[in-house]
Amino acid sequence: MPQIRAYGSMSGTSPLAQLTIPRRDVGPTDVKIDILFCGVCHSDLHTARGEWGGVQFPAVPGHEIVGKVVAVGAEVTKFAVGQNVGVGCMVDSCRECESCKSGREQYCYEGNIGTYNGKDHHLGGHTFGGYATDIVVDQDFVLSIADSLPLDAAAPLLCAGITLYSPLRHWGAGPGKKVGIVGLGGLGHMGVKIARAMGAHVVMLTTSPSKAKDAEKLGAHEVLIWSDEAAMRAASKTFDLLMNTVPQSHDINALTRLLKVDGAHVLLGVPPTPYPPLDVGRMIGNRLTVAASTIGGIAETQEMLDFCAQHGIVSDIEMIAMQDINEAYDRMSRNDVKYRFVIDMASLKNVAA
Amino acid sequence: MPQIRAYGSMSGTSPLAQLTIPRRDVGPTDVKIDILFCGVCHSDLHTARGEWGGVQFPAVPGHEIVGKVVAVGAEVTKFAVGQNVGVGCMVDSCRECESCKSGREQYCYEGNIGTYNGKDHHLGGHTFGGYATDIVVDQDFVLSIADSLPLDAAAPLLCAGITLYSPLRHWGAGPGKKVGIVGLGGLGHMGVKIARAMGAHVVMLTTSPSKAKDAEKLGAHEVLIWSDEAAMRAASKTFDLLMNTVPQSHDINALTRLLKVDGAHVLLGVPPTPYPPLDVGRMIGNRLTVAASTIGGIAETQEMLDFCAQHGIVSDIEMIAMQDINEAYDRMSRNDVKYRFVIDMASLKNVAA
Repeated sequence: MPQIRAYGSMSGTSPLAQLTIPRRDVGPTDVKIDILFCGVCHSDLHTARGEWGGVQFPAVPGHEIVGKVVAVGAEVTKFAVGQNVGVGCMVDSCRECESCKSGREQYCYEGNIGTYNGKDHHLGGHTFGGYATDIVVDQDFVLSIADSLPLDAAAPLLCAGITLYSPLRHWGAGPGKKVGIVGLGGLGHMGVKIARAMGAHVVMLTTSPSKAKDAEKLGAHEVLIWSDEAAMRAASKTFDLLMNTVPQSHDINALTRLLKVDGAHVLLGVPPTPYPPLDVGRMIGNRLTVAASTIGGIAETQEMLDFCAQHGIVSDIEMIAMQDINEAYDRMSRNDVKYRFVIDMASLKNVAA
Repeated sequence: MPQIRAYGSMSGTSPLAQLTIPRRDVGPTDVKIDILFCGVCHSDLHTARGEWGGVQFPAVPGHEIVGKVVAVGAEVTKFAVGQNVGVGCMVDSCRECESCKSGREQYCYEGNIGTYNGKDHHLGGHTFGGYATDIVVDQDFVLSIADSLPLDAAAPLLCAGITLYSPLRHWGAGPGKKVGIVGLGGLGHMGVKIARAMGAHVVMLTTSPSKAKDAEKLGAHEVLIWSDEAAMRAASKTFDLLMNTVPQSHDINALTRLLKVDGAHVLLGVPPTPYPPLDVGRMIGNRLTVAASTIGGIAETQEMLDFCAQHGIVSDIEMIAMQDINEAYDRMSRNDVKYRFVIDMASLKNVAA
């Protein structure tokens, strides 16, 4: 069983540092991937710092993984050595429940197997993510990445991209629809690009007037400052769909009031403190939906990657070395990144042994 | 302008009593209806007692109206004298907005014109409802009632019936779907009957074990006591759809946890105190929807009446005289009615002048 170089935390209070983890041998249906880049998601930070319940240590985060296939098992039919591939937030699921059978593995009734901090059915213990030199994943949870996509900037598509693509598709974003993307961060900036490519009229909702220019550069048709009460009143009942990426509690009802009859407000994060109670009166008078969504299924993630290749969509990234990760986390906590850190994994491979 | 006999309250603190109100002359597109029966809805009580903001007095409630056409305007094409008809919660809408043009008049962007306490564009002032001997309504807001339906028990279909029918249809109740009806009152008992006729597997959710037999008699396949934590745990993630008719605040999250992936919890009432904040974590892990809905459009209400005629569905009612209304309100406040009071309007017509 190969031991490989990785980066992770030994407890919620210790910084991430280099360590050694096991990877399983390549099984009959496995694909071994040489990791070239790994995006840095807020979930990585929460996990490494033990901010979420049930984190197992050592914690090796990373679920926006891209690289090249370096080995395949005897029964692998979908991938070949040398191919560009990706791995997102899941590495397996039960494959037998109603969700899995309908391509919604992210909502597996047994719980999908997270790329990190999931139950490792091969080696026992828990799974280790993409802050590592390589990874071994069953072919059914590996995604193909078109040669036209730059691998570094494509990495965040595997989590941030699909987190927006899936609900935008599910709730029917497209021509003739006015879609609001709430919050301009790693998720929000992908939302603007993808919703625009889907043909929707895209409005960036932010509390920071300073972000207006950036939002327009990313593809937003309009910017709505949602701390501006007059602007919010004027925009009342004009949106078909809201994708809410803000990770803190806020007045979701003020946003819901922007929705037209039959509109949907989709929450994409779980705030550490609860949202205020629903304004049911407003909802009942307009048949409004408040819903929540996370990532996407495997087939849908492939569809998203192909859509992004077709439309030339990638993330705006800032490249870092693996050794810079603790500083990057600190900057993410201050929202000081446009819009996603991506780790160049050569920095980990090139360390003297 | 005819002055007619009606029943209403002069203030939120005075009981309902007989009074005289004007009705407009029959205009070119109007239908004049001799009111035979009028159902008694909780909204009637809240309005008569001024418990909702913006109530105008005298308040003449009643929006579950059935009767016979006694006159039609020169341009009326849809109805003829002698026909059985009904009027529900609306008597008009703007007819030009996106909602009206798509048959969702209940969600008119200008606000639909309520059958009572709405803005009366003909006489000025506010509209008076069905606690009266007759009413004049534009033909486009009059519903046809099949001869096979008993008129008295059909009255509650106009509000309670459509309030359940519309969301059950909108969210896809039917064969293969497990639908929970939360709360067994005027709305809930219609929900059980209609969902059953749509072919769904119907579960009545109540906190009163004593209601189990009644629920089964109404057509529920199962009864789930939602104060029973073990039963609730066992039923976790098994429902496609919940129709929540409980008018008080309660733990909606405990109910939402019953939903399968992609399930929807539809709120049909606005509680006087807010619901607790959403359990977003549960929602995000299962792509759940919390939505709200009220009555239905005119075409949809006609569809509902025809569906009920086809399936022999009416309300379970207790007939009262107009003069019994204050006592009936008191009993409704104590949930002491199975399941809807209906006023026999002969009792108002036969009073000595």
